[in-house]
Parts: sequence; structure tokens; C-alpha cells
Amino acid sequence: MDIPVTRESLAKAEALICGYVRQTPVIDLPTGAFGLSQPLSLKLELTQHAGSFKTRGAFNTLLSRPCGPAGIAAASGGNHGAAVAYAAQQLGIAARIFVPEISSSAKVAKIREFGAEVVVQGARYADALELCDAYRAETGALGIHAYDAWPTIEGQGTCAREWERQVQAMGAGRLDTVLVAVGGGGLISGTALALEGRVRVVGVEPEGAAALHHGLRAGHPVDVEINSLAADSLGARNTGERVHAVAVRAVERVVLVPDDAIRLAMRRLWSDMRIASEPGGACALAALLCGAYVPAKGERVGVLLCGGNVALSQLAEMTG
Amino acid sequence: MDIPVTRESLAKAEALICGYVRQTPVIDLPTGAFGLSQPLSLKLELTQHAGSFKTRGAFNTLLSRPCGPAGIAAASGGNHGAAVAYAAQQLGIAARIFVPEISSSAKVAKIREFGAEVVVQGARYADALELCDAYRAETGALGIHAYDAWPTIEGQGTCAREWERQVQAMGAGRLDTVLVAVGGGGLISGTALALEGRVRVVGVEPEGAAALHHGLRAGHPVDVEINSLAADSLGARNTGERVHAVAVRAVERVVLVPDDAIRLAMRRLWSDMRIASEPGGACALAALLCGAYVPAKGERVGVLLCGGNVALSQLAEMTG
Repeated sequence: MDIPVTRESLAKAEALICGYVRQTPVIDLPTGAFGLSQPLSLKLELTQHAGSFKTRGAFNTLLSRPCGPAGIAAASGGNHGAAVAYAAQQLGIAARIFVPEISSSAKVAKIREFGAEVVVQGARYADALELCDAYRAETGALGIHAYDAWPTIEGQGTCAREWERQVQAMGAGRLDTVLVAVGGGGLISGTALALEGRVRVVGVEPEGAAALHHGLRAGHPVDVEINSLAADSLGARNTGERVHAVAVRAVERVVLVPDDAIRLAMRRLWSDMRIASEPGGACALAALLCGAYVPAKGERVGVLLCGGNVALSQLAEMTG
Repeated sequence: MDIPVTRESLAKAEALICGYVRQTPVIDLPTGAFGLSQPLSLKLELTQHAGSFKTRGAFNTLLSRPCGPAGIAAASGGNHGAAVAYAAQQLGIAARIFVPEISSSAKVAKIREFGAEVVVQGARYADALELCDAYRAETGALGIHAYDAWPTIEGQGTCAREWERQVQAMGAGRLDTVLVAVGGGGLISGTALALEGRVRVVGVEPEGAAALHHGLRAGHPVDVEINSLAADSLGARNTGERVHAVAVRAVERVVLVPDDAIRLAMRRLWSDMRIASEPGGACALAALLCGAYVPAKGERVGVLLCGGNVALSQLAEMTG
């Protein structure tokens, strides 16, 4: 597959969306943080508008694609839905979000708060997507795929470009490796293309939501069963063709983490740093805490905290 | 009163503690954030070790004062106690923290977690302080005052120095004004001395915990009644002589905010940015949200988020 995302297209995407997304902070942690034996660079993308990196891809799509009077439609009960709703609201575009019945009420409330019309229907994500597709065929509404689309991937890639510049401006040594959680794979695809040839990009998936891991083993995207604490943000059943092609070319490897490690990462982020992360947002850190990824001596590792849309009650349960 | 804190002594304090405290992140927010009509620089000091700026003053004291075999003793049911316990643990010094009975159980648990011996006794802070003083007289343990002591003030001042450098490194325009919450006044004293002659420093106090406001009006420190949502971190009854002298010389002015504005600031920090702040930590932002401080057109304002030791249940209540 031809991959049309380049350094130039990523730079263009960043210029296009920079007035709409937050430059999220980076914190450098010395050896010893979270009990680890190497320094870390944490990118706090969970302070992004609407609570996750998804806002970048949503703006990049809406600002680069023509959108008619029917507005925009997306299927997502989670961060993608919230991000599309937020971006549409900021740009004065009508948004309709199709949400499966299993979605957390906190996330659905957030989507409504951003002014989108919410359709809660269908047992699973695939059902909501089908309803969304039918609506788009009928009305001509623009769609935004949550991960397997080039404008989405390009938008997510702007986070890594920003991070690289911030690390440089802080006078810290260049990153050797970044750890990125993988759901459908839009974020890791953008990250890997943005950093290709300079920084190793390692994917982290929950054991029970490992679409990219299984796809890479099979040599093509495959459907996987989903059963993880982080399912609401990382629970894509299949990465799609574009993400697969990017991962084959530019992702170093994928490691798996158990839910217990995700829980531990959430707990450590809260107790050690007062950072409230959702399960998916803590997944990359979990790989270090449980030893799924073991850095070499002196390796400079970056950890992307990608989402913070957690209900406080859930966080309290896990950290209490 | 002679004020011994200088640029040189602040630089020395920073060099002394830099291996022990976190360089906390800064986020630049454009016009529109929190519905405000000016850009903001937020200093996320709530990601500091032990959850607040107090850790800076604790390390500066412990590293610059001789400490005998009796170790260290402090009276505080809150952030100061946690910070002293954390710093003592890191340096291998025995710590005993005297805690009034009204202290939140979350904070007491944190102090214990850091390995300190906790004495919960006395109805109010003043009672705990008296017990602490008696213990020190008996054992020779070193004391660390929570705010009215030069090594404490100097340590807290390192936060502003760091912030100023970060703003410069980010290529953002220099700050004109910073807003700082005031409890006993150690943080604002250090901040005002660190930025004196370059950046205006404005104090923010809850209407029901306004020791500095009333002291400045009276011309000397006075005892005030405490009744505020933020009492557990900003509830000092009296600023003490050193803080008063610094404030007279170097603090631009003090503004007051109602508890409702603090609640609103906590809510906005959580909903817009996924930042979990304690009431005291959100107090400076509250001044902008309620109009207690109205910046001039084009004024570059910094807001110090100074503490994050909030129980998730309390935060959930306020943001729900």
C-alpha cells in the first residue's frame, strides 16, 4: 500500500491545526520515578481538548476535507466521539455521533456537552458504525474514521512532532524510544511516521485488546476478541489496512500488558504525580512497570499519556 | 525587618535542591481557555513530589540545616506534613509529624506512607504546633516552619525561578503578572522575592482564610477566623512576621475569592483539562474566573496551580 503521509504533509497538518489544539506539556522525570531505573519523558496529551489526542485527527480532517450542510458523522462511544464533537463545535459544524449501548455514561455526557446529536443504538461498536454509514449514505454527511484514514493518522502524528521539539527546547537528550498505546492504531501510525528514522516507536496493547499484535503476526489485519479494562478506548477489533501497512514499515515492535499492569500504572500516576489517566492512557507506562518493555542501559524513553477521560469514581476505585 | 533572601541565595537554594525536586511542567493556554479573554501560563506544581510546592521548602531546610539524631519534627495535617515526611524519607532522616484531629484522612495516610511517625492529637493546628514544640524542646529535633522561616521561603521561591526560565525556553512572551494562592504566605513570599522588579506578584486568598489581606490592612500580622473550602491548605490564622515584611515590600496586592469561585475553578480544571486540583491549588485560577483579578488588555498572566492533594471523592462531588 502506498503511504501518502510524509514529513511535509505532517508539517502541513501541524500548521493547519495549531490554532485549535493545545500544545500539551512534557515532564522530564529522573531515574527513580515510578521505581524505574531510567529517566523518562512523559507527554501529557491527556490535557488535550476533549481529553485525548483524538482531537488532533478530528481537526485535521475537518479542516482539510469539504463538509456539506449535513455536517459530520462518526461512530464512537469514546474519545473519538468526544473529539469529533468538540472540533465540530469549535468550527460551527453540525455533528451526529453514533454510540453503542455499552459506552460509559460519562463519555456520552461529554459528547452531548460538546453540542453533538448523540444516537445511542446498537449493542457493539460495529453496529453503531453500520448505523453511521447508513446515515452518511442517506444525508451526505462527512465521515471521520477513528484510526484507519490518512487525515486522522496525519493529525495524530502532530503530537510526536511537538514532543520532539519540546524535548529539544528543554535541553534534554534526544529520545531513543517512545512507547505508545495502541487501540485501532491511528496514534501509533502517526507517531511512527513522524519519528521514522530518528526514534524507535514501540506499541503497547492490552493482552485482551491486541489487534495490531495479532495482525502483524498474521501478516494482515485480523479480527480479535476484546476483553480488557481499557476496552473503551483501546478496544478496536481490527486495525484496518492503512494502520497495518504503516506498522509493518515503521513500528519497531508491539508488546502486550496485562490489565493488572494498567491498573498499577493508573495508581502510580495518581499517587506519585496527581495525574488522572484513563486505562488506555496509562497503558504505555504499564509496559515499563511490568517489564513488558525493558529499556537498555542509558536508553532515553518517552511515554505518551494519551487520554484522561476517566470517571473519577472509576479512578477512586482503582487508586483506593 | 531585614530580609536575607537574595537572588544569590535563591540561586543557591535551587542548586541545592534540584536533584530532589521535580521540574514541574508549564502549559501555555491561548485566549479562550476557561472562557477567559487573555492567554495564560499555567505552572503545574501540583505534579511535584508529595503533591505540592511544599517539598521545595522542606528539602531546602533539611539540606541547609544541621539535623541531629532526633531527626525532624513538624506540625501540619496537610501538604507541609506530607512534604516534610517525603523529604525526610528521601534523605534517610527520621520524621515525626504532629497532626490536628481535623485533618483529612487522605492526607494523614499520605504522611504515614512516606514513613513518618504521625501523632494525631489536638483539636486545631495551634494545638498540634504546641505539642510539636514541646517534643522538639525535649528531644532536640529540628523544626521546619510551614511558611514563616527563611529557608522555607527560599525553597518555595525556586518554583518561580524555574517557571520564568521555562516560559523563556518556550519562546512565549515574558509574564507580566503571576497569581499565587496564599495560606501562611511562604509560597507568595518566595515567589515575590524571586520575581521582584520583573513580574508583578498578586496574592489570592479565600474570603474565609484571608490572613495576609487582613495583616496588610492592619499594618502587622493579625489572627483571623478561618472558614473556607480551602482551609486544609490555606487555613493559616496568621502569616507571621517574615511573610508580612516580604509582602509589604514585594507583593503587588492581595485579592479575595469566595468558595464558589474555588469550586468553579476546580470544576473547570477537571472538565477542560483533566487536571485534579485541591481547593487551595485552584484558588489562583478562581481569581480570574470570578473577576477578583481583571488583567489589563494584553497582560500576560501566569497562574500557579500549587497543590493537588485532593481526595477523588471530594473532587467527584465538586465536578459531578
